[in-house]
This record gives sequence, structure tokens and C-alpha cells, in this order.
Amino acid sequence: MPFKLVIIGSGAAVPTLQRGVTSQYLNFNERRILIDCGEGTQLQLRKYGVRFQRLQYIFISHLHGDHFLGIFGLLASMNLLGRTQKLIIFGPDGLEKMIRFQFELTKVTLDFELEFQTIHCKTKTLIFEDRVLEIFAFPLKHRIECYGFLFKEKPKERNIDKDQIEKYAISLAEIWAVKNGSDLERDGKIIPNDQLTLPPAHLLSYAFCTDTRYYEKAAGWIKGADLLYHEATFSEKQLDRAKATHHSTAAQAAALAKKAEVRHLLIGHFSARFTSTAELKAEASAVFENTTCVEDGDEFVL
Amino acid sequence: MPFKLVIIGSGAAVPTLQRGVTSQYLNFNERRILIDCGEGTQLQLRKYGVRFQRLQYIFISHLHGDHFLGIFGLLASMNLLGRTQKLIIFGPDGLEKMIRFQFELTKVTLDFELEFQTIHCKTKTLIFEDRVLEIFAFPLKHRIECYGFLFKEKPKERNIDKDQIEKYAISLAEIWAVKNGSDLERDGKIIPNDQLTLPPAHLLSYAFCTDTRYYEKAAGWIKGADLLYHEATFSEKQLDRAKATHHSTAAQAAALAKKAEVRHLLIGHFSARFTSTAELKAEASAVFENTTCVEDGDEFVL
Repeated sequence: MPFKLVIIGSGAAVPTLQRGVTSQYLNFNERRILIDCGEGTQLQLRKYGVRFQRLQYIFISHLHGDHFLGIFGLLASMNLLGRTQKLIIFGPDGLEKMIRFQFELTKVTLDFELEFQTIHCKTKTLIFEDRVLEIFAFPLKHRIECYGFLFKEKPKERNIDKDQIEKYAISLAEIWAVKNGSDLERDGKIIPNDQLTLPPAHLLSYAFCTDTRYYEKAAGWIKGADLLYHEATFSEKQLDRAKATHHSTAAQAAALAKKAEVRHLLIGHFSARFTSTAELKAEASAVFENTTCVEDGDEFVL
Repeated sequence: MPFKLVIIGSGAAVPTLQRGVTSQYLNFNERRILIDCGEGTQLQLRKYGVRFQRLQYIFISHLHGDHFLGIFGLLASMNLLGRTQKLIIFGPDGLEKMIRFQFELTKVTLDFELEFQTIHCKTKTLIFEDRVLEIFAFPLKHRIECYGFLFKEKPKERNIDKDQIEKYAISLAEIWAVKNGSDLERDGKIIPNDQLTLPPAHLLSYAFCTDTRYYEKAAGWIKGADLLYHEATFSEKQLDRAKATHHSTAAQAAALAKKAEVRHLLIGHFSARFTSTAELKAEASAVFENTTCVEDGDEFVL
């Protein structure tokens, strides 16, 4: 599976019977990632069929309760249910201290390794990479330190053109060199690499931006992402409230998507005042057509 | 309403789609009390129609995650939704520190007063009383410091016998004195108080015992309670597991109820291995007939 995103919780501030608080599950090239972990996330994961013992990484955007309070119970349940596999948690300063303090006070000893990576950056910064994935954090504009994330496929090798293998009788050793960028020599003549190879497949990317007020700089950092999740806590009718609380309106989320030239915008983190998302959808779509209001349990596959 | 108990969560250790983790709502003579507050309690309260802003007291039995992790989110939601009324939290040492530490790190300032009462006792101890209610804590036998609670109506005034008012032409001032225990004098003769009054109505009491292994001493402390909630994490088939984890079997819960001569036993805190409670019900009822296995949302009115 190259890319599957599951919306685990799509509400703001307070969990309701309609929406859990923020959490998303991302399977990106078999890297199993949880983004944010509001209260009740472990139960929502069960509800939507995500096996939490298989999670490898957790990314926490900021330390407001509706984005991280579920992590204590999730870790406790992982432990109780016999986890031994290492887990890596990325989050702002304070998260590790809080988790370790709680385990200490409640006399919990984990049977699996927990690694913390504290995020602290003032611009877009690479915080993780492996063979297939790069993950960047970048600052958002909220009331407290808060980070957005960009999950991106790593540049792949160019694919060799099979017709050219035949035409030039390219050997196995040469194929390997060509895939890695070398040109080919035949009869004293150089055949350049881009005549022998095809461009690599499109590199998928997903940007996660919550919580934040409209912050144009972020558009540059996520330019051209295939999918952007951006918070839309309010509609333009509550613009004052959005400003005061450092949140975005649906129109602002759409403006950011447009500016960033993303392909598809998901909006969520809706205030509990909205029992229907029709108004938010209309408001955002007027600015950026390809907008979806998410619901808990929604899946997006790229 | 003299007494209403709502089971908010009845499962052990890990919340499942069938059962939340431990929490109960008790309205006892209009005192609105939450007992334990596992993760997800705020949402379960919504689900079962309990208005959490009206809670006045929270009692936390012990600091295992499935009994208290929901308190952070509950307090945050109370604050976000505009609470100004004072809240009093009773719990073991460490709870206050953990809550204050978390608010400090996440820069939350509460707009309502939070009072902490740390419980620490080695025998049955009065921890709260007002005009109508007495609440006792007593130690249980678990892996960590853990308390049971006894909620009890306060001894009431005796009721004056209306026939006697007429017979002796008792004045208003005399009625007040008689209700408070005085005898009456008529023609130089003393009419004793118990000839003028009727015994007060039965004093309701509710005992909450979780988590604990079978602990006979507790039976003395809750003697004759109208209602006892006792944990029954396991059946006798998992007796070894119960011993190792300091939990009770259904038969042990029933034995405690029998020993304590309570009227009605509720069992809960069932391990997630039980998809049906039939076995636990049969096991307990064989020892103590008036046993009910609770489900989330169950209400008990006395």
C-alpha cells in the first residue's frame, strides 16, 4: 500500500458523540504512523480497524489536550497487551517529560523501548528519513508551540527504458550503473543517461497543518503536496473568534491550499457548533474547489 | 432524587467498543459525584446523558490509568465550556501533582477553583461530610495504593408522631425540641422521646470496591450496605491470574458481599476476555444470589 490515510478523529477541542478529537493514521509505504492522539484515540483506532500494536511512529503537533491526551492510555494499553516492538514519538518539548513523569508516578515500567525525538524548529526541517520516506516539521502559528508535518516519498531511482537495454545490449552491471545515473559508452560514443531512462514515478506527499491561524509561509513549505489536511475550526462568520484563538476558517484553509497549489484539500478540526459541514464545505470550495470535509473513519488512498 | 447510580464504564484495563474503563456517576441526595474517571469518561458521560458541568466531587480510587486518565480531558473540557463552579477532587497522593504538572506544561489556567483532598488512610476513615452525606475511604489490597469508598446517608432526625402532637397538644417550639431528641413534660410527668417519635427512615449506603483482591477486612467496613459494587475482573478459572494481578474473581466478589451482608451486589471491571458475562453471573450468584453484572449505561435507583 503506497498511501492510506484514516481519519481517526476530526473534531476540535472537546470530543463529542459525532467526532473524536484529532488523530490520524497514516500508512505510507508500509510505515505505520499516528499523527496526533487526542483522548479516546485508542478506542477510535479499534473502531476503525487500525491495529495499534503495529504503529511504529507517533507525531504530536502540539501540547493542547485534544491533540495528545490519548497518548498515555495508548502507551499503557500497548504495554498491557504485550508490545515489545520499539516506538518512536516525535513531539514538542515537554511531551517526553510529561509521559515519563506519569509513568514514574503510576509505577508503570514499559516492556518496549520508547524513543523520543523532540521537535524544535523555526523553519521547515527534516526530522526523519529512511529508504523510502522523508518527514519534515515546520512551525505553525497557534497559541503555543505547534508544528505541521510534511510526509514525502524519497526521490526514487530513474527507471531504465527496456527498449534501450535491447538496443544497446546493456549488461547487468551497466543497468545498475545507469539506474544510478551513469551515462553509457558505446563505440567511443556517450549515450546520456536521460536517453536511457524514464523519469521516476511521481513522488507522493501529504501535509498536515493543525492547529494554526492562516499562515502563508506554510504554503511554501508544502508546495504541490498531493494531499493537504488543514484545520478549519470556524467559518468566516466566526472570523473574530478564529483570530482570537489562533485558528483558521474554512475559507482560510482553502486559501492556503490554493497558494500551496496542492491537489486535494481535506478540512477538519471543526468546532462542535457545526452539526453539519455544508456551510464549511461551500465556503472552502468557493476558494479551492477540490475540498473534502472529513468525518471520523474516512479513508483516503493515493 | 435520593440515590441514582449510573455505570459510565464497566471494563478493566483497556477500553473496548463494548465497555469503557471505570467510571460511575452517583447522584446521592443531590450531591453529584463522579467515582473514578478512566480515559473517555467525558464522552461516556455525554453518551449517558450526565451533564458533567454539574459534577461537584470526583473520587479517584487509585492511579492506574484505567481509573484516572480521563480526568485531564474532563477538566480541560469543563474549563473550555465555561465552568466557574468549584470542583473538589479526592484521590491518592500524586494525583494533584500530576494534574498541576500537566496544566503547567500545557499552559492551561483554569477559570474555576480546583480543590484537592489527598486520601491517605490505613483503616476506614471519614473523608467528607455535609448535612446529608458521609463519605468514608478505606484501603483495598491492590498492587498500588488503592481505596474503596462508602457513601452513606447521615443519621436523620427522628420523625415526630402526629398522633402524639394532638394527644399532648405539643407546641411548635416543643416539636422542634422533640425532633432533636428532648423528652416532653406534661403535668409534672416525663413522656420519653421514643414514645413521641418514630424511628428515622432507613439510611441508604453504597460501597465501591475496585481494584482489589479478596479482602475480608473490607466486609466489616461496609457492613449492611444497600448496594455494593465490587470488581470481578476474572472468574475462578483464572484464579492464578487474579492472585498475580491483585484482582478478584466473581466468586470472591460474591463472598465479600455475603460476608458484608449487603442487600445487592453489582459486579464489573470485567477483563476484556469475557464477551459474555453469563459465566461470571452464574459463579457469583451461586455464592450471593442478588448479584447483577453491570453494563455501561446501567442505572440503579434506590
